[in-house]
Amino acid sequence: MDQRISFITLAVADLETSRAFYVDGLGWRPELHEPGEVLMLAAGERLVFSLWQREQFEAEVGAIAAGPGVAPFTLSHNVATEAEVDAVLAEARAAGADPVEAAQRREWGGWTGYFADPDGHRWEIATNPGPIGQRVLP
Amino acid sequence: MDQRISFITLAVADLETSRAFYVDGLGWRPELHEPGEVLMLAAGERLVFSLWQREQFEAEVGAIAAGPGVAPFTLSHNVATEAEVDAVLAEARAAGADPVEAAQRREWGGWTGYFADPDGHRWEIATNPGPIGQRVLP
Repeated sequence: MDQRISFITLAVADLETSRAFYVDGLGWRPELHEPGEVLMLAAGERLVFSLWQREQFEAEVGAIAAGPGVAPFTLSHNVATEAEVDAVLAEARAAGADPVEAAQRREWGGWTGYFADPDGHRWEIATNPGPIGQRVLP
Repeated sequence: MDQRISFITLAVADLETSRAFYVDGLGWRPELHEPGEVLMLAAGERLVFSLWQREQFEAEVGAIAAGPGVAPFTLSHNVATEAEVDAVLAEARAAGADPVEAAQRREWGGWTGYFADPDGHRWEIATNPGPIGQRVLP
């Protein structure tokens, strides 16, 4: 199995709410949109970010674990400077992200904070001074 | 906010079990490994796949939703042919993936199946004849 990820798919409760957040709020450009079903957006040269209406996700993948708490994953968006981290978190807040956790110094040297999308899916906005952090920057 | 994802981080119950599955089983090459804490692997030119020991994930991100069911996301690994889909699913099964759901024809024309990693995180192995599916291939 080659070492690559092609799509990241998230289940969402209401696709139009997600579309409003990512497209109208954050300014992302849709690549493919089937209203009420699926929204796909480029997230890298060979990477697609896909939002899938929850009922359809569950019909194919299985029932989603319920209950309070976060999902066991985060997506990170890395930027070059701490000021950019703060700016993106402010942009997400303006787009309606809730909660938004202000960035803080991490013990490994980074400066990172989190926001939740309309389904509570967590995005980490980060600057990472290490080699692996530098390698993901555009 | 630029339209890109830099890291995908999954919480895992036992990092060494995850390392054995991805590195020994699937043959992925670690980029960074802090035993008992975090394992990072390249998953694209500017994309890192990160596995984070669950207790540390929860300390930073929050308590994870418990209960039966799958997490509300999947990662997809796209290949060029249906034979490759079947071959990667067989490779995952040999590496200990459980369950493995055999590929089937999807209504949009693809041929896809799923496997679960040691934490039940779902990978979709797919061939997608549409333009968006072709664009993610190496």
